[in-house]
Amino acid sequence: MLDSAVKNQALLAMAAALEAKTPKILQANFLDRQRARQNKLSAALLDRLTLNEKRVQAMAEGLRALTKLPDPNNRVLEKIRRPNGLRIEKISVPLGVIATIYEARPNVTADAAGLCFKAGSASLLRGGSDAAESNKIIAATLRQALQARGLPPDIIQNIESADRHAVGELLNLREYIDLLIPRGGAGLIQKVVRESSIPVIETGTGNCHVYVDESARLKKALNIALNAKLSRPSVCNAAETLLVHEKIAAKFLPQILQAYQKAGVKIHGCVKTRKYNPAVLPATPEDYAREYLDLEIAVKVVADIDEALEHIYRYGTKHSEAIVTENKQNAEKFLQKVDAAAALVNASTRFVDGGEFGFGCEIGISTQKLHARGPMGLRELMSYKYFVHGKGQIRK
Amino acid sequence: MLDSAVKNQALLAMAAALEAKTPKILQANFLDRQRARQNKLSAALLDRLTLNEKRVQAMAEGLRALTKLPDPNNRVLEKIRRPNGLRIEKISVPLGVIATIYEARPNVTADAAGLCFKAGSASLLRGGSDAAESNKIIAATLRQALQARGLPPDIIQNIESADRHAVGELLNLREYIDLLIPRGGAGLIQKVVRESSIPVIETGTGNCHVYVDESARLKKALNIALNAKLSRPSVCNAAETLLVHEKIAAKFLPQILQAYQKAGVKIHGCVKTRKYNPAVLPATPEDYAREYLDLEIAVKVVADIDEALEHIYRYGTKHSEAIVTENKQNAEKFLQKVDAAAALVNASTRFVDGGEFGFGCEIGISTQKLHARGPMGLRELMSYKYFVHGKGQIRK
Repeated sequence: MLDSAVKNQALLAMAAALEAKTPKILQANFLDRQRARQNKLSAALLDRLTLNEKRVQAMAEGLRALTKLPDPNNRVLEKIRRPNGLRIEKISVPLGVIATIYEARPNVTADAAGLCFKAGSASLLRGGSDAAESNKIIAATLRQALQARGLPPDIIQNIESADRHAVGELLNLREYIDLLIPRGGAGLIQKVVRESSIPVIETGTGNCHVYVDESARLKKALNIALNAKLSRPSVCNAAETLLVHEKIAAKFLPQILQAYQKAGVKIHGCVKTRKYNPAVLPATPEDYAREYLDLEIAVKVVADIDEALEHIYRYGTKHSEAIVTENKQNAEKFLQKVDAAAALVNASTRFVDGGEFGFGCEIGISTQKLHARGPMGLRELMSYKYFVHGKGQIRK
Repeated sequence: MLDSAVKNQALLAMAAALEAKTPKILQANFLDRQRARQNKLSAALLDRLTLNEKRVQAMAEGLRALTKLPDPNNRVLEKIRRPNGLRIEKISVPLGVIATIYEARPNVTADAAGLCFKAGSASLLRGGSDAAESNKIIAATLRQALQARGLPPDIIQNIESADRHAVGELLNLREYIDLLIPRGGAGLIQKVVRESSIPVIETGTGNCHVYVDESARLKKALNIALNAKLSRPSVCNAAETLLVHEKIAAKFLPQILQAYQKAGVKIHGCVKTRKYNPAVLPATPEDYAREYLDLEIAVKVVADIDEALEHIYRYGTKHSEAIVTENKQNAEKFLQKVDAAAALVNASTRFVDGGEFGFGCEIGISTQKLHARGPMGLRELMSYKYFVHGKGQIRK
């Protein structure tokens, strides 16, 4: 196990190495983008693939930020003293080897490698093939920085094989890999979940709702509904459906629909919603189920909080769900009943994030219930182990 | 979510119902055993299958014991206060639906159902087909007790289909099942791990070692080595290999080998071990890898603690590993370096157990690193959820 200071020095060295290699990284990224354009990659995906000086700088800063966080390893999580004199300690330990499979976003290569390294684990990285050249040089740079400090470079490994079967094989190396984190679209995640025998943590599918209750303050509701949709539509904690109590609909809907329209949001609404604005398109069940990740939203009028909860139960992805209400009982009911990683009262869904929760970083937001739920920071990348201290005790 | 008192009353009702139904349960069990004998089930498996009045009583007592344990649900695990005024609480919540697949041990039907019920989860039970009649009546009895108290009986479900494909289908109901726990032999566990898309927790394979260090006190070492092997050879936390530092071998080995022999233990030893006792059989690598679960053990002389750690790394199953030593540095080294759910200093491996750890019960001992490691009690059967309390906060 590496000492905390050794890890932090190495992270600083990795950051400096990325900065020093910026020209080569941008050159490799240029080749990726050239090929990606030939492959007709969409503008949004091209943007995610694109690196520039500022983005390389941001990767380096991400690594530096990790050095400020407490070491999650070797912490005493619990002490138990037994009547027979046994002293039991529950101690945090690294998971071991963490594999991350992600789309063509080269910044994830540095992020995931850094997080796993700080958490004491080795990382296996498999990014989207459109970013192959970028990932190769970024991983090589990080590995060189490790080696220059006398550390084994193989604790960061980029899987370069262009062969798609490589992923299939990876998914079954249970003996060697302790955790597999798929980051990306629902298709990738489902494939990994179906095919992997390695424990997987599902992250990032967020069909999040904002429910505006009868008693909501108008101003709060407007702020939250706008912020949840508009502050960054492409991320998983952005709202995708707005649910409105029918008794507040006449006051609230005209304002919010107009505000959305003004911001260029395409709106799919139920019959009642459409009465308040002729530009609203009719909403289908598919519209309620979609994670738009874009300037697009579904809006539905509901009879009460129970209908809101039912709707969320049917269409939600167990990510983040918000209620706007001044009614304490309804707030409590919503918190208790909604089945999601995070339930929010009078706050934007956009706060469900490792940084905003004070974790300092995150590798993703888990939407499953095992091991970790919600934002996963360093602590959520750890396992634990029991130390049992005896004086010769035997069991009767 | 059921109230704690409601759950405890129901558990008492289930216990009473099992006792009241004892004659019918024994009748069903008689049919199972009749068929099992025709199917040439081994004596050991027949014993595990067998119920009698005392064993039914023990199942009932197990359910009653659960009522004494604190409710693991709705506990505040952590409170976070953010600079923007957001109050975040991390709250324990049930996993949802827990499926348990196990061999022909009808007592597991009541145990697993009771544990999951107390943990707030529904249970799906699939026991070995040799115990089909017993499982059917036990599950029906528990369900009737729930129904009589106005609770939905379907929160305990026994999968009765004799069709082996039923398990295959179960393994892929990821949408409906939150956790799958295979209990039983390595074959069953590996099948489940390979085929399931549902999160699995591996339990119970224990190739556990006792390492007697150079500085060990002879008496402690003898007690621990005997207890770890003999107190209950058929369970996963029993020792399967004894490792002995070469400098203590001449003093320790003659005594322990004789003691094992006297107790009827079959011994597989390395060349050095065999010098101390002519009855010791030569040990092969397969002998070091085997989980005997019987009066049988492998014994090896090692040069030092490092060779002991290497041996454990190669052959261990990450369950429970013990060192007997008076050397504090070696104790610390062993605790830190050995890759197992539990590392013990001067104590028998047999203590790695939910009851002995003070958890009050256990559904198994996890040998994987994700979610829960080591003994799994009620707390390890829970998930969590974040409650975020705001006053209208939006994200910049």
